[in-house]
Amino acid sequence: MRAYLAGPEVFLPNAREILDRKIALARSYGFTPVSPGDLVVPETETRRERGLAISAINEKLMSSADLIIANLTPFRGIAADVGTAFELGFMCARGCPAFAFSNCTENHFERVSGLYNGDVRLGPDGRHRGPDGMALENFDMADNLMLDGGIAARDGIIITRQVAANQLFLDLTAFEECLRIAAGKLLKQATSAECAAH
Amino acid sequence: MRAYLAGPEVFLPNAREILDRKIALARSYGFTPVSPGDLVVPETETRRERGLAISAINEKLMSSADLIIANLTPFRGIAADVGTAFELGFMCARGCPAFAFSNCTENHFERVSGLYNGDVRLGPDGRHRGPDGMALENFDMADNLMLDGGIAARDGIIITRQVAANQLFLDLTAFEECLRIAAGKLLKQATSAECAAH
Repeated sequence: MRAYLAGPEVFLPNAREILDRKIALARSYGFTPVSPGDLVVPETETRRERGLAISAINEKLMSSADLIIANLTPFRGIAADVGTAFELGFMCARGCPAFAFSNCTENHFERVSGLYNGDVRLGPDGRHRGPDGMALENFDMADNLMLDGGIAARDGIIITRQVAANQLFLDLTAFEECLRIAAGKLLKQATSAECAAH
Repeated sequence: MRAYLAGPEVFLPNAREILDRKIALARSYGFTPVSPGDLVVPETETRRERGLAISAINEKLMSSADLIIANLTPFRGIAADVGTAFELGFMCARGCPAFAFSNCTENHFERVSGLYNGDVRLGPDGRHRGPDGMALENFDMADNLMLDGGIAARDGIIITRQVAANQLFLDLTAFEECLRIAAGKLLKQATSAECAAH
């Protein structure tokens, strides 16, 4: 089974090294990994065309994959990388099994509360709101309910683990736990576990 | 054509009012709008089950829709709402036309540079990086390349507009421009414009 390895590791200074470690780990659990950056980006005239070319490659790789393992560790803020969220939605729509990990154990509600410095109040409508009036989801979920819900609906799981701050995008323990669980669920019954939509 | 209206407006204190304004505008341009919150959430035992039930409703609404119009205005940080990003990826995988708007004209590169207080350097590998070593996408795009790329690949467009800070999630001018363009592209040729995957 081909596993699409989504996550913000592509932005790391040592991206290639970390992607290669993820690829080797995925292989050791019996998966055929595909990850952003596997294909060569053609020469383009403009920066925008280069961005579009990379997007097209990643969509092609996803369309060739049977499952996704997404790194939802909060990136440059309180939520998962939006590119990774897009890819998770893409693979969920294809009916593929979806798994995720995060190197942060604070849940979505706790992180948004932190953004508001704890100034969160329960309103008469039963929803918690920040001082800007915006509601906080309080569903015991790692991130926005579409992400957690999409994974749960496809019999997946989100593994969370607290790591040292300087290991936030380097520690692959939770990723490996994801691989172990995904292999247990999918590789014994590979033929029946292909994307439901295909 | 059924248009799924994605965006973080569901978190507003006056969410119902704004969603109703979006629904009325979408109808006035000839679309049949569906939006998160249209269906009643069944009673559940736990908070997590409630979140999962809302996710299942939103996925069902998306699966009934023919296109998406996503609000990518940065939400609680420098990027689009991750739930909206998931939904955009979901609809792109279904082969549906995708349109978006943002009430922020700063592009992705400018917003991430701002997060780093401008401390961004061009490295020997040709990529801009922040002091944490993380690369910044510099593709003249509104957000992460998967979002802009997914929309462009489906003949869509992102309309951006600067609005007053207190109107960030209330001003519907860019949304209406999106509707006008989507109607021009899709409603004259509705039968041929259904989701490619269906």
